[in-house]
Amino acid sequence: MPQPAPSPLPRTVAWIGDEQGHLELLDQTRLPGAIVVLQPASAIEVAEAIARLAVRGAPAIGVAAAYGLVLGVRQLRPLPDAFVAAVRSVAARLAAARPTAVNLQWALDRCITAARALPTLPALLQEARAIEAEDRAASERLAAHGAPLVPEGGTVLTHCNTGRLATAGDGTALAVLFSAWQQGIRFRVLADETRPLLQGSRLTALELHAAGIPVEVLVDGAAAGLIARGQVQAVFVGADRIARNGDFANKVGTYGLALACAAHRVPFHVVAPRSTFDPTLANGAGIPIEERDPAEVLTLAGQPVAAIGVSARNPAFDVTPGSLATSLVTDMGVLRPPFEAAIKNLFAARR
Amino acid sequence: MPQPAPSPLPRTVAWIGDEQGHLELLDQTRLPGAIVVLQPASAIEVAEAIARLAVRGAPAIGVAAAYGLVLGVRQLRPLPDAFVAAVRSVAARLAAARPTAVNLQWALDRCITAARALPTLPALLQEARAIEAEDRAASERLAAHGAPLVPEGGTVLTHCNTGRLATAGDGTALAVLFSAWQQGIRFRVLADETRPLLQGSRLTALELHAAGIPVEVLVDGAAAGLIARGQVQAVFVGADRIARNGDFANKVGTYGLALACAAHRVPFHVVAPRSTFDPTLANGAGIPIEERDPAEVLTLAGQPVAAIGVSARNPAFDVTPGSLATSLVTDMGVLRPPFEAAIKNLFAARR
Repeated sequence: MPQPAPSPLPRTVAWIGDEQGHLELLDQTRLPGAIVVLQPASAIEVAEAIARLAVRGAPAIGVAAAYGLVLGVRQLRPLPDAFVAAVRSVAARLAAARPTAVNLQWALDRCITAARALPTLPALLQEARAIEAEDRAASERLAAHGAPLVPEGGTVLTHCNTGRLATAGDGTALAVLFSAWQQGIRFRVLADETRPLLQGSRLTALELHAAGIPVEVLVDGAAAGLIARGQVQAVFVGADRIARNGDFANKVGTYGLALACAAHRVPFHVVAPRSTFDPTLANGAGIPIEERDPAEVLTLAGQPVAAIGVSARNPAFDVTPGSLATSLVTDMGVLRPPFEAAIKNLFAARR
Repeated sequence: MPQPAPSPLPRTVAWIGDEQGHLELLDQTRLPGAIVVLQPASAIEVAEAIARLAVRGAPAIGVAAAYGLVLGVRQLRPLPDAFVAAVRSVAARLAAARPTAVNLQWALDRCITAARALPTLPALLQEARAIEAEDRAASERLAAHGAPLVPEGGTVLTHCNTGRLATAGDGTALAVLFSAWQQGIRFRVLADETRPLLQGSRLTALELHAAGIPVEVLVDGAAAGLIARGQVQAVFVGADRIARNGDFANKVGTYGLALACAAHRVPFHVVAPRSTFDPTLANGAGIPIEERDPAEVLTLAGQPVAAIGVSARNPAFDVTPGSLATSLVTDMGVLRPPFEAAIKNLFAARR
């Protein structure tokens, strides 16, 4: 695959050194105004960074949590026969940071399995590094599988941020766009600003602009009207959890976008690695939806915007029926409807 | 009709005194943080106030423009035989302030007709006052016709602001809610914040909270997911222009909301006086959609929120097919689909 343009940003998640080393997290709450790299000293600090979205994006929080586990277990200095119990205890604390993206629990489960096989800190770090490397490799495969879906000369719309800031690699949906651009496919991007935390205008616009891809921001409510007016040829989004029938949770606002695409027959592509699939859920009804602090809605860029005394609802995600998706782009290939059988095959092939 | 609770705010649009008097406009760009009343000295200043949304809401800008016409013609001091030409000239300047809401042109056309019948400043002011009084009366009738549609014990969702700040009276969609509440119907309201200018969290939440009606704000993208989860029993919105077949323009984000309601069979009610209907348009394709300054999307209170160097699309409205509406609540009664015949009858009955 051709190399993407260099990112102007530090790495999203980076472990520096051996098991006595440290974790670095790019603080995404400060972007685009400031580049601040955090060095969390404990698993609690990693969990807090995940909870307040300093690190975010389903794959990235899985990787960050795996490294957070190393920090947390190292601090506990467990005796060898208490090692696995320590891992489980710290993992439970990290898993509670955010409920919706299954990648978080998936990464922690992998680390627990690894610790049971070899209960040492170097082995735990090795597993975290493996998760990171696999996520980077998954990004490359997502990009390769998805790039042919990008419409030459068209306008592509995306929601939230699914790029280098959301994974250990180039991203999920945005990795597809980076790859298509590198291959010479030319297109424009409309980026939903993605209220309340503006991951679209702050992060996605930053990444695309840095890569030289033409991008314009729009308010989330404007997407449906532009789709109706024929101004969007394809939509690419990521996902935080995908059920066995293809129903998926993603950043709030995704469901409405999918409805608009369905109404106007605009292709709607969901791009996610296998770590985002939850084989325990038959459909989307069982996906827990995180409700976040109303203050995120009642303020914009830190300033109060709403009338005094008024409260807010703040669901961070919504669930889109798989039936509204044109394709599920996975690291194993592009799945087409009906998704139930395709996803079953995907998991039959898994490791 | 029972009287609504007193508003804590100055009047939205008020002409003080006779034809040598002055116009007062509550500056809605400063709400909810500050109560600032503008006294525009000229029609140009009124046009600017309309263009920058200091006064907004389809009916309210019609009323404000009519009074702006008095200011502008008074300043020109036209000789009697040039009076109508002066009115036309000032009206053209005012009409250009915003393109989508037809109420603006409708009010100015009425004033031109009045000036042709009696080309004097007192007659022009009298027509402006009549437009204001009729709009207030229309609000009362909209409220009376729409209140029975409010679901007792349910949750109602609304978009943008359609209350006292949007009309000379109690509003359009919000007037329905005020009236239902006064009649003892109990319900809760979810108010879309309505990016980019947050008329929902700034203005609608302020009005409902002041009236004692329970209200929570949400980001626009959250509405579809809550509708899917059965948390909304009815949606009420206003309109800026309605074509002969019921297609209508309203604040950007309305179309996506209508799609979500249709997908989940949630009643979707459009509330507007006859001045919002445009009998010259067969359908919504001919409605001009205002594109506003990208800075509204890229900044907040002068502070950049998006990545540097990135531009934005900023359509202020979208068009919803009449086929997605459950009812059109007008001051003449509630219209049901198919709307084409019902609207035709409405205009046959018009003055």
